[in-house]
Amino acid sequence: MNIDKIKPVNEGLRPALVDKINNKTKPLGSLGVLETLAIQLGLIQQSLDPVLSAPKLFVFAGDHGISSEGVSAYPQEVTYQMVLNFLQGGAAINVFCAQHGIELSVIDAGVNGQFLENSGVINKKIGLGTQNFAQTEAMTLEQCNCALLAGRDLVLAEKSTNIFGFGEMGIGNTSSASVLMSLFCDLPVEQCVGKGTGLDSKMLENKISVLQAAIDKHQDIDRSNVMQVLSTFGGFEIIMMAGAMLAAAEQGKAIIIDGFIATAAFLSAYKIDPNILGYAIFSHQSDEQGHGKMLDFLGVRPLLKLDLRLGEGTGCALVFPLIQSAINFLNEMASFESAGVSNK
Amino acid sequence: MNIDKIKPVNEGLRPALVDKINNKTKPLGSLGVLETLAIQLGLIQQSLDPVLSAPKLFVFAGDHGISSEGVSAYPQEVTYQMVLNFLQGGAAINVFCAQHGIELSVIDAGVNGQFLENSGVINKKIGLGTQNFAQTEAMTLEQCNCALLAGRDLVLAEKSTNIFGFGEMGIGNTSSASVLMSLFCDLPVEQCVGKGTGLDSKMLENKISVLQAAIDKHQDIDRSNVMQVLSTFGGFEIIMMAGAMLAAAEQGKAIIIDGFIATAAFLSAYKIDPNILGYAIFSHQSDEQGHGKMLDFLGVRPLLKLDLRLGEGTGCALVFPLIQSAINFLNEMASFESAGVSNK
Repeated sequence: MNIDKIKPVNEGLRPALVDKINNKTKPLGSLGVLETLAIQLGLIQQSLDPVLSAPKLFVFAGDHGISSEGVSAYPQEVTYQMVLNFLQGGAAINVFCAQHGIELSVIDAGVNGQFLENSGVINKKIGLGTQNFAQTEAMTLEQCNCALLAGRDLVLAEKSTNIFGFGEMGIGNTSSASVLMSLFCDLPVEQCVGKGTGLDSKMLENKISVLQAAIDKHQDIDRSNVMQVLSTFGGFEIIMMAGAMLAAAEQGKAIIIDGFIATAAFLSAYKIDPNILGYAIFSHQSDEQGHGKMLDFLGVRPLLKLDLRLGEGTGCALVFPLIQSAINFLNEMASFESAGVSNK
Repeated sequence: MNIDKIKPVNEGLRPALVDKINNKTKPLGSLGVLETLAIQLGLIQQSLDPVLSAPKLFVFAGDHGISSEGVSAYPQEVTYQMVLNFLQGGAAINVFCAQHGIELSVIDAGVNGQFLENSGVINKKIGLGTQNFAQTEAMTLEQCNCALLAGRDLVLAEKSTNIFGFGEMGIGNTSSASVLMSLFCDLPVEQCVGKGTGLDSKMLENKISVLQAAIDKHQDIDRSNVMQVLSTFGGFEIIMMAGAMLAAAEQGKAIIIDGFIATAAFLSAYKIDPNILGYAIFSHQSDEQGHGKMLDFLGVRPLLKLDLRLGEGTGCALVFPLIQSAINFLNEMASFESAGVSNK
């Protein structure tokens, strides 16, 4: 890979940020997690007055060969149909991005279908869906590299944006994410598998045995080789998202992490460069079984826990006003001195 | 009291609301708590297309005689100073209300100090702070009634508002709230007392023994008589808030509940009329010890848990965009049919 190294977030400004916060007209520490968030954004931007500019959300769509194994409640064509729905503005992520002034772009990372030239989708198609990893590698190493770099290019083009959210759409992609989690976190696959978009318990049993068999089939791969793991089990949209996350952190920009699949993409990026962690804001803990364990593995605490399990980047969009609130209290609240309020 | 009865929320529209949500282009139930919230707002407004109009937040301020017992980390004059800070726009609640277009009004329910005529504060002063309930009743029954009715009048005047948030400011008011919780929930006072704005463990010990002694002193009051409990231990701002909450629910309007003190006000209102519960949205679980138990007593789940313990209504303001998101997905998302997306 040709990825610049991510600089660890410089902690030098922390005492000054803490001091600024502690002089605001409120009891010490009383804004809780918003204070942690304000400090994180100040450190990322190396500023006592951080700002959020031109927030941007990329939704990456891709299909998965594994979906032919009956691991999803929905048929594969829903990926294509939902991309059209994104382009027409009818999906949840459209509604929430519009609410918060977040610019939304939809990327064809590898949907099994062709979009019209003027559809509005950004064409970064790597292939017409991945291969079925129950039978063979999901993609070639070259395709894996192309996906990472395509994600990177998308982020580098957004010069005025300093905070990115990322979403995904891809029938079957919880299966890919579950296997990546199992291998990267070294956890049994049944702890990493959930009901996705709505499996019943029999379908869930099938999903677990399909994924266990696939892991067994590819048992000879080198689990410490991230690119080999990603090309064997990954999805185009997951890997492209990981590339985009890495690029944003390299640029010293904040990234918002959505649910189960986006966190699996983040985990992949983290395995490539753990310094990415300081740039990441974890939006929510999904209702998908496994997400909590993945967040524990990373040692992070999400902002929301609302039983969401939709993907599309919806958690990123929903949490955006809280991130803005953290910035706003830091920049706009009066100090004890300026307001003439007695401190303790 | 001269309070109209609150109508229980009419459940009749629930099946139609569930049906509308289940036809949105997303997996069933995948918006989790936002779906619950959308249904609640639809039922409150008796509409399949609920809207939030002219959101309004009242901050009630009052002083507490009990603060002379060393139960707070801050001196009493901070109540007055913070009201000036609210009026000048420098407090956290100003910042968050401005962010979300929520109109903020500041009410002098009983601050120990006089504001200038043109200060911008709404004068509903019942007295110059309550009496010290360690020694005598906090207020007369007549004052208690006046406070309830003043809160009621404020809400009735806001005809175009259909969703209200409520905040408070009052040095010493966690002590009042803790005793109300202890009596209304029938829990030992040490389970209802927390560090407030930042007590150390020795001050906390003192707070517990002061409050236990006060409860013992007034052991002859009739705990099933809400007005007697409120006049003995309440605060002007807490009771005025309870009156405002009751009036909003009577009008069929949604109310957002903030942290520990606002929930104690809600609990008082709930003891007066339990039908208020269906109109209430619980914004967050505070870091103040005891808040979680009060929410458990009510059998409710808050939307956020961000270690906030600031009051002022900040939780209400912070959660407002999530409530708006619940409304927006219900009204703006495409259905499977309209978007041409295959259902399961």
